Amino acid sequence: MPVQMELRRIVISEVQDQQFIVLKEVDGDRNFPIVIGIFEASSIERRVKGLTSPRPLTHDLIGNIVSQMGGEVQDVYINELRDHTYYARLRIRMDGELIEVDARPSDAIAVAVTLKVPIYVSEEVLSEVCGE
Amino acid sequence: MPVQMELRRIVISEVQDQQFIVLKEVDGDRNFPIVIGIFEASSIERRVKGLTSPRPLTHDLIGNIVSQMGGEVQDVYINELRDHTYYARLRIRMDGELIEVDARPSDAIAVAVTLKVPIYVSEEVLSEVCGE
Repeated sequence: MPVQMELRRIVISEVQDQQFIVLKEVDGDRNFPIVIGIFEASSIERRVKGLTSPRPLTHDLIGNIVSQMGGEVQDVYINELRDHTYYARLRIRMDGELIEVDARPSDAIAVAVTLKVPIYVSEEVLSEVCGE
Repeated sequence: MPVQMELRRIVISEVQDQQFIVLKEVDGDRNFPIVIGIFEASSIERRVKGLTSPRPLTHDLIGNIVSQMGGEVQDVYINELRDHTYYARLRIRMDGELIEVDARPSDAIAVAVTLKVPIYVSEEVLSEVCGE
């Protein structure tokens, strides 16, 4: 079962080369951090702050490619945790079909925040990182 | 007339927050620099060095989205210079049609280097920046 999440925090450290975001359950309190790169963290932060750019940034470009090719990003889904690495999918609706594209959670979340689509995490992943 | 270019140099400065790449004509000597961000510069450099990643990086993700949606990036085209800003297009072949998606040159070139597709610049832009 996918559980809808929201972006709770973005932690960008100037001194350490490690940034993370915290996702929190929309209908509950479970939450967990995901370590991401500085580029993706900055990209996500820009969106959350509502900063705009005169030219399409990389995650805008992704949205534009999908829509000009006739699809729509339906949501993003963090569906697996393996060897301390989270795996995500961009789920694209096109011609009545669902296309799932493998992505890092950082890109998936940057796309979700850019396009304002929901973020889901599988119950299995959530139970594993937060306990039951 | 589009003129085919190749990536000649990537200049990444640790001290200045300004990176640039140099594009050079494949069948000639004209060349010019484009200032790009550190993320795109690093992304392009990784590809040129043949470094691989266990997970899809952002420009890999773009390639995967296009192919899973049934298209193919044919080439990238830097077609305009306006107010000191270069404009580019990803040209995607899909169902016999050509879809042109507006992009920053840095993303366009990162995609071109990732997918090994040609980079073109319009003769107008090349003449403007290099002279006739």
